[in-house]
Amino acid sequence: MLARSSLPLSRFLSSSRSAHSVGFIGLGNMGASMASNLLSDGVSLKAFDLNKSVVEDLASKGASVTDKVEDMVDCETIITMLPSSPHVQGTVETLLSAGWSGKTWIDSSTIDPIISKSLGEALEAEGKGKIDAPVSGGVKGAAAGTLTFMVGGASSTLESVRPYLSVMGSNIVHCGSNGSGQTAKLCNNLAMAIQMVGTAEALNMGDSLGLDPKILAGIMNTSTSRCWSSDSYNPYPGVLDGVPASNNYEGGFGSSLMLKDLGLATSAAGAVKSATPLGNATKEIYTMMESMEMGGKDFGAVLQFLKGNCGNKKC
Amino acid sequence: MLARSSLPLSRFLSSSRSAHSVGFIGLGNMGASMASNLLSDGVSLKAFDLNKSVVEDLASKGASVTDKVEDMVDCETIITMLPSSPHVQGTVETLLSAGWSGKTWIDSSTIDPIISKSLGEALEAEGKGKIDAPVSGGVKGAAAGTLTFMVGGASSTLESVRPYLSVMGSNIVHCGSNGSGQTAKLCNNLAMAIQMVGTAEALNMGDSLGLDPKILAGIMNTSTSRCWSSDSYNPYPGVLDGVPASNNYEGGFGSSLMLKDLGLATSAAGAVKSATPLGNATKEIYTMMESMEMGGKDFGAVLQFLKGNCGNKKC
Amino acid sequence: MLARSSLPLSRFLSSSRSAHSVGFIGLGNMGASMASNLLSDGVSLKAFDLNKSVVEDLASKGASVTDKVEDMVDCETIITMLPSSPHVQGTVETLLSAGWSGKTWIDSSTIDPIISKSLGEALEAEGKGKIDAPVSGGVKGAAAGTLTFMVGGASSTLESVRPYLSVMGSNIVHCGSNGSGQTAKLCNNLAMAIQMVGTAEALNMGDSLGLDPKILAGIMNTSTSRCWSSDSYNPYPGVLDGVPASNNYEGGFGSSLMLKDLGLATSAAGAVKSATPLGNATKEIYTMMESMEMGGKDFGAVLQFLKGNCGNKKC
Amino acid sequence: MLARSSLPLSRFLSSSRSAHSVGFIGLGNMGASMASNLLSDGVSLKAFDLNKSVVEDLASKGASVTDKVEDMVDCETIITMLPSSPHVQGTVETLLSAGWSGKTWIDSSTIDPIISKSLGEALEAEGKGKIDAPVSGGVKGAAAGTLTFMVGGASSTLESVRPYLSVMGSNIVHCGSNGSGQTAKLCNNLAMAIQMVGTAEALNMGDSLGLDPKILAGIMNTSTSRCWSSDSYNPYPGVLDGVPASNNYEGGFGSSLMLKDLGLATSAAGAVKSATPLGNATKEIYTMMESMEMGGKDFGAVLQFLKGNCGNKKC
Repeated sequence: MLARSSLPLSRFLSSSRSAHSVGFIGLGNMGASMASNLLSDGVSLKAFDLNKSVVEDLASKGASVTDKVEDMVDCETIITMLPSSPHVQGTVETLLSAGWSGKTWIDSSTIDPIISKSLGEALEAEGKGKIDAPVSGGVKGAAAGTLTFMVGGASSTLESVRPYLSVMGSNIVHCGSNGSGQTAKLCNNLAMAIQMVGTAEALNMGDSLGLDPKILAGIMNTSTSRCWSSDSYNPYPGVLDGVPASNNYEGGFGSSLMLKDLGLATSAAGAVKSATPLGNATKEIYTMMESMEMGGKDFGAVLQFLKGNCGNKKC
Repeated sequence: MLARSSLPLSRFLSSSRSAHSVGFIGLGNMGASMASNLLSDGVSLKAFDLNKSVVEDLASKGASVTDKVEDMVDCETIITMLPSSPHVQGTVETLLSAGWSGKTWIDSSTIDPIISKSLGEALEAEGKGKIDAPVSGGVKGAAAGTLTFMVGGASSTLESVRPYLSVMGSNIVHCGSNGSGQTAKLCNNLAMAIQMVGTAEALNMGDSLGLDPKILAGIMNTSTSRCWSSDSYNPYPGVLDGVPASNNYEGGFGSSLMLKDLGLATSAAGAVKSATPLGNATKEIYTMMESMEMGGKDFGAVLQFLKGNCGNKKC
Repeated sequence: MLARSSLPLSRFLSSSRSAHSVGFIGLGNMGASMASNLLSDGVSLKAFDLNKSVVEDLASKGASVTDKVEDMVDCETIITMLPSSPHVQGTVETLLSAGWSGKTWIDSSTIDPIISKSLGEALEAEGKGKIDAPVSGGVKGAAAGTLTFMVGGASSTLESVRPYLSVMGSNIVHCGSNGSGQTAKLCNNLAMAIQMVGTAEALNMGDSLGLDPKILAGIMNTSTSRCWSSDSYNPYPGVLDGVPASNNYEGGFGSSLMLKDLGLATSAAGAVKSATPLGNATKEIYTMMESMEMGGKDFGAVLQFLKGNCGNKKC
Repeated sequence: MLARSSLPLSRFLSSSRSAHSVGFIGLGNMGASMASNLLSDGVSLKAFDLNKSVVEDLASKGASVTDKVEDMVDCETIITMLPSSPHVQGTVETLLSAGWSGKTWIDSSTIDPIISKSLGEALEAEGKGKIDAPVSGGVKGAAAGTLTFMVGGASSTLESVRPYLSVMGSNIVHCGSNGSGQTAKLCNNLAMAIQMVGTAEALNMGDSLGLDPKILAGIMNTSTSRCWSSDSYNPYPGVLDGVPASNNYEGGFGSSLMLKDLGLATSAAGAVKSATPLGNATKEIYTMMESMEMGGKDFGAVLQFLKGNCGNKKC
């Protein structure tokens, strides 16, 4: 865990720069907060998103804004926080074609690690640095500047942009070479999803056989089946306070987002012929939940799916 | 966590009893150590097992021994530690038919919770007390007297035999009514097995994509996929010292035993129509490992199965 | 395919017998029709079921009736058509205890093949013959006397009761020794269920990608994925006329019954450690359908489950 | 089923054409035979492949050859028979960039139907016709000119190139619009793979429980679990003559190729969020077989995998 700098980031950066330091592309729930934190720290930032109202909001916080990605051509650092691999690919292609003069690309999107690696190679072939730096910590972590970054890429590239990451997050883990940040995130989320479904199966089975879910969770959490999905994010309503399961599965990490990550994870595993039988079974469970219109619920809602409480609006 | 008594158990028990206090049936790796601990604590104990050499060993430690279960007819407390449901059923039937005059039956075997419940009802119909008290902690815990007992049954029955349990274990968890101890153990082991396979899938996937297993385990263990199978029993060789994975999967909890517990768990879940899709998929993985002659390896060897390193003697 | 006798069965049987020839136990939808066919053919038959109205109906057709299984003690042949293994076990025990003087037991229930085998051994130890003879053909086949019997047991035993089977069915397949009739039925139904789900997955996937289900079914049915579930019982509404899928999944083979058979099949496979990964996954799908109150629908309704149309009354 | 023309195809085609009629790209086991059949029928053909010896062989049969795809720029019809989506994408891009002056593209590769559809749209935007026309029938069908083509695309486009397809195959099925040929093939192969694994599970389970595989196959093939994988391609050695299972799983449809098709099928299903739980489970089984070096065996070898006979050279 790295301590955040107690001084504004701007002190560490050249003040003589004529162009904007950072071009930030992708201002969704996560990206907008990350960009805001950079602005608060004094970073000179140019912002782009297709959503005009989000862009205007950032402008009011001091960002320069643009409606064309090509206008980022002279930003020294580009940060992307985009929904899928093709979006990131397209953005890299657009800026390289436009003659991007900057030095470093930070991709914080969660995308296919194999594509991420190839984008890194393409950028390096042009003499640029690139790190993949997907995050965990959710919308709350993004707002608070306490994200964890899982970073793939050269150490020197990471060090050159560490000040930015330190503003947006509180934990920076160097996972290895180009692409390995994406791999780490997907491996973590694959395992987390499997653990959530396994925890839900055990709690539901115990419940069906007459065992109190709170008692069972207490046993599991002090025994060999303890895991984050059980001890910190328990999917059975009422076992823990302040988690989505105790709030009708509102908030939290949506089942649709988990399905997206499971799709990326199993696709990457498939590309290298690495067997993930439970990962694939879990992906199919979340696919069925999506079909039953449970995608907007927290991913712990798999417990309700197992109980047959699909909450399907189509029924 | 209950403190073990610092005084010999015998102090707490009537010294005027003419018959043996405890009849202990089933002296495998676990049972023999548990019985030894009772003997060391001064309990008057009669022992039975089909394996003569084990019985003789206990005799040398002060046990009375017998080659007929019926000879336990006047033991006040019966403890069973047997391999499967039919063994326990047969023993209960035999002793009830023989006119067992005792009071309390402690079944520490891991068996079907539905059968366990029905045995409890049969014993209660005869005016006897019964608790199911399966254990965790393994052979080491049995030898050290530090087992965890997951207890189902009436509180009064549990209290009447707590001194014996306190000699054999250091943690006694009352899970609920008759049968719920078995349910708790099977739920825990179901979730544990799923987590182990999920951990192995994530580590193997990361490895296949070029990520160092130690680095990935470090990330998982401080993130949302942390679990006992990753942080305390990691299945990737070399990530942790002193675990079976770092010793060619020798020792530990055998894959065949896990398969047995998964069979009990999925059978119990099936009986109440509680869906355990990952539990069943995991059971099938351990079935295939059994077919490939990996049953004697620790259950973390699923990582090698996923890699295609079956170590099959038939090949 | 055996031709049914054109003469009444009674001609083949001793007319001098003082006791009833056949004791028929279990008069559900299937059993009542089977018993009726025997009565129509002139068989002297004593009937038992807990459901009084069914028993009275058979009495009106000429059956002797009883409200105690023990009253079958002098029936030469016993036929059981019961819902589960414990029912059959209990009936065998009751009649053996009562000193059953008959010769041959025909068990047409679908039960665990390992239990079926052990019942055969128990009966043979008493000098009795036993065949397991589960059926296919459904309620229609039972009414029409066109069932298929899958028979396990000694050839001589089969031949001794073939006339009865020929009245109730039109196809008698000798599968092998004691228990193998049950095994054959469960293997068939396991494979059938997997094929149904696979067919539904393919049709749903094609549909989702814009391919007309009738065109796709036509291709599958003339290609390497043709199967009974596709060409004779297609689960997509409107592809075939006269099948449950084209009648809101009414009639046909209920999903709950399929779940029961999948439970028996996977349990038997588990007992001999034979891996059935898709069989277990299929069982879990039907378990979830049961939780979503789809158990009364034909088993082809899995196509609607995959589409997220659970029709759950709980929603 | 369409009758093949009894006259050489050349009679139907313009003889005044200055350029080669057909550019054939991709001369693997399938493509080389398909191109040979066109040559034998008098088609003017230019051939390309990276494998020089295959190209030379076609040259000796009358083909014009080239070592640059761009040289196909004036071929009226392009036929591609390539191993994966990126190969086809790259070829389309190359020829469009080079100013291809032809009219119709026939893609007989098996690729992602969504990519296939987008390639069709790209070609149509340039005023070209495109059909996807993947095949079944294997190497034997390619050599004999008896392939089945599953065709997606406009009817008029199909009709314009039907004479070529009729030379290479004996069955042409129009599945629907652009992309639907690929979808049909993948749906068929998904269902076929599931049926094969299901058949293998049932046969192995029966065998494990003492039932003769030939007897069981006989029952299945006349009952509700009959399917092509059982009645025409049975995976149990010795049940059928002349199938791969009776020849040590040599020849036939390799497990690696099935894995490739399952990857395409589940990826396409995933893209439209269509649940394929058994399809994904089957893909993982073939992934594990690949890890155990069984990829070169016919896909019926899954029966040996289930038995634990992996034949792994690594062991």
